[in-house]
Amino acid sequence: MSSQADRALQPGGRAGNASGLDRWLLRAMMAALPGAGYEVVLWDGTSVGDRTGLRVHILDRAALRQLVRNPSLYFGDLYSAGRIAIEGDLVTFLERTYAALEAGRAANDSVCWRLWAGPAPQSSSLAAAYDNIHRHYDLGNDFYAAWLDREAMQYTCAYFAEPGMTLEAAQRAKMDHVCRKLRLRPGQRVFEAGCGWGGFALHMAREYGVQVRAWNISHEQIRHAADRARSEGLDGRVTYVEDDYRNIRGECDAFVSVGMLEHVGPENYGVLGEVIDRCLAPQGLGLIHSIGRNRPEPMNGWIERRIFPGAQPPSLGQMMAIFEPRAFSVLDVENLRLHYAETLRHWADRYLAVIDEVRASRGAEFARAWHLYLAGSTAAFTTGTMQLFQVLFARGRNNDLPATRGHLYP
Amino acid sequence: MSSQADRALQPGGRAGNASGLDRWLLRAMMAALPGAGYEVVLWDGTSVGDRTGLRVHILDRAALRQLVRNPSLYFGDLYSAGRIAIEGDLVTFLERTYAALEAGRAANDSVCWRLWAGPAPQSSSLAAAYDNIHRHYDLGNDFYAAWLDREAMQYTCAYFAEPGMTLEAAQRAKMDHVCRKLRLRPGQRVFEAGCGWGGFALHMAREYGVQVRAWNISHEQIRHAADRARSEGLDGRVTYVEDDYRNIRGECDAFVSVGMLEHVGPENYGVLGEVIDRCLAPQGLGLIHSIGRNRPEPMNGWIERRIFPGAQPPSLGQMMAIFEPRAFSVLDVENLRLHYAETLRHWADRYLAVIDEVRASRGAEFARAWHLYLAGSTAAFTTGTMQLFQVLFARGRNNDLPATRGHLYP
Repeated sequence: MSSQADRALQPGGRAGNASGLDRWLLRAMMAALPGAGYEVVLWDGTSVGDRTGLRVHILDRAALRQLVRNPSLYFGDLYSAGRIAIEGDLVTFLERTYAALEAGRAANDSVCWRLWAGPAPQSSSLAAAYDNIHRHYDLGNDFYAAWLDREAMQYTCAYFAEPGMTLEAAQRAKMDHVCRKLRLRPGQRVFEAGCGWGGFALHMAREYGVQVRAWNISHEQIRHAADRARSEGLDGRVTYVEDDYRNIRGECDAFVSVGMLEHVGPENYGVLGEVIDRCLAPQGLGLIHSIGRNRPEPMNGWIERRIFPGAQPPSLGQMMAIFEPRAFSVLDVENLRLHYAETLRHWADRYLAVIDEVRASRGAEFARAWHLYLAGSTAAFTTGTMQLFQVLFARGRNNDLPATRGHLYP
Repeated sequence: MSSQADRALQPGGRAGNASGLDRWLLRAMMAALPGAGYEVVLWDGTSVGDRTGLRVHILDRAALRQLVRNPSLYFGDLYSAGRIAIEGDLVTFLERTYAALEAGRAANDSVCWRLWAGPAPQSSSLAAAYDNIHRHYDLGNDFYAAWLDREAMQYTCAYFAEPGMTLEAAQRAKMDHVCRKLRLRPGQRVFEAGCGWGGFALHMAREYGVQVRAWNISHEQIRHAADRARSEGLDGRVTYVEDDYRNIRGECDAFVSVGMLEHVGPENYGVLGEVIDRCLAPQGLGLIHSIGRNRPEPMNGWIERRIFPGAQPPSLGQMMAIFEPRAFSVLDVENLRLHYAETLRHWADRYLAVIDEVRASRGAEFARAWHLYLAGSTAAFTTGTMQLFQVLFARGRNNDLPATRGHLYP
């Protein structure tokens, strides 16, 4: 059991004995999660579910009521607050929950699913209690540097081209995989939309001899990126621009965006397509790498509100709103879902190695919230709840294409 | 100049001198095709356009009027009837026309484009004159056997894995490429929807040791396929079923369809998804190989009416209507457009080698129509007007997936 759970599970329930209504709510919730494969224990020891060694402790009555009302939003809040604790492996618990939610939703015959299928309640006053869960990109570069790869600070899916690769090697392999898909050649002009801490732009300039212009709206990330370009002597070949992707202008031979589309929102895909159409040379290639879905679906409420405001991973069909209106030709789509699960396992391991420092500097709720976010994202990719699409495209009349994809597998 | 054009270009125009209106129509049509890069010559020698050595001869007044009214429908009819003749390479003429049509449509500032953008006129009485252009699959197996590959009679895009492959080798490579994507293993159960003359089913059973059930509604094709299975001693491992894809039942480890989707129609994609969902085992893989488009667009009117009734190649976004409602996970999309252009060049070469026999047995119109169809399809793929998508998919929770696509490139 984790130390948070230890502390939370002090003897002496905080809410008196569970009532008949409490027990009814608990049973109703578990009926909506068929085959969940774990036990749920209330503050007074009341329990339902399978005794598999994996246990969820709900530590007060209000927590139970909130959880039943909207589990996808409140589970995260309650777990972060220490009002729910998991005894056993967090990722396994989340994987089983994702699977049970899918089975329950498909069966759709419980009272809870009638409740859960309605519109999500608006962000409540609980939000006020989580001021310490800052917006994603205001958290400071050091926070991310502590658990991302040490070379290029890639906060996107790595590519484990060979089994047993380190995170650093797999991030390099991801960058090379994208560069090979784009067939980068020395002297080409590359535009990168959403460049994070700039590591990929540097990689392209250093390893492929291209000229890169890279856009990002995060001031902290741009500053970090520009400092690094100078210190590596690559500032003549890489320019970082603090501006929105909608303002990208000029001509490029390759247009690449790794991990930005999730933040763009489907309502802006047409504009993104316009931007690319305005910039891409006739024989140019483009690649968009994004978290995705098997069908259009809203983001998990908790992650969308507390961790990644506004994030919306698209289905492949939704992504086509970038390409089809401009008649771009999709050449290659690769789904790297299991590579993202592996990437997240690396990140979570590194995060847990520094969680005590995170707790000391940012508080226990923040530390738990980010552990949950990394574990939950791992589970979302292992269970197929989330996808990772790389979409390579060209203008419709571009015939300067490799005969096969064999060059990606040297 | 081809022998048809020779005959058609006998001295002595059939329609008297071109009138002022004729010349105005001709100039208006060419203004709608900017940069067409050829000369158009009327029956009396009146000509407009670029003197590039490539010439279109319009041999009577009614032909000009029909062509201006609806070129995408009537060009094919008029060419087949010998009322339009091409002096120079037919594929080059068609490629330039596709490009000029696209440029003209984009500019959209000519009187012709206002006419052409309207609803297509209904099939006219001309249709009666083309009874000899039979529906696609009633033409007899011998007709196709004369110009398809000699081993497996694949009437779908080949895969030129290595430069200079023969058509036979490239069709084998296509079948192996699909089998590798599906990761076929001995003893697995494969369902094939739309099996043509059965060559792919035989290949899977023979080379991969799988059990195949293959569906097709064409009686002639099914009979040919079953005969071949018996003569190869594979009838214990391959069963051909004369029935519609909607009636496919049972469980399979792989669901594959090569070149059927074009005939299914987007309105039935949901049903096709249901069929696959009903049949595919939890760890199964599926692949759909289809001609496609960069955006939703109707088929060329002439091909749809005279050659391939009801054909409708989908955009990738349209194809998602098969997968997204059932939450299938798209793993890999490959666009093999230029492989189809190469396949068609092989078919057209073989077709031209037997065109005299085709003309003798089926008449000059039929012979010209099929030449035009093969040349026009080549041009559609070289100009990016048409795509060829292979879409590999699995159930959302299937994690039995290869780490990379390297196994496709041994």
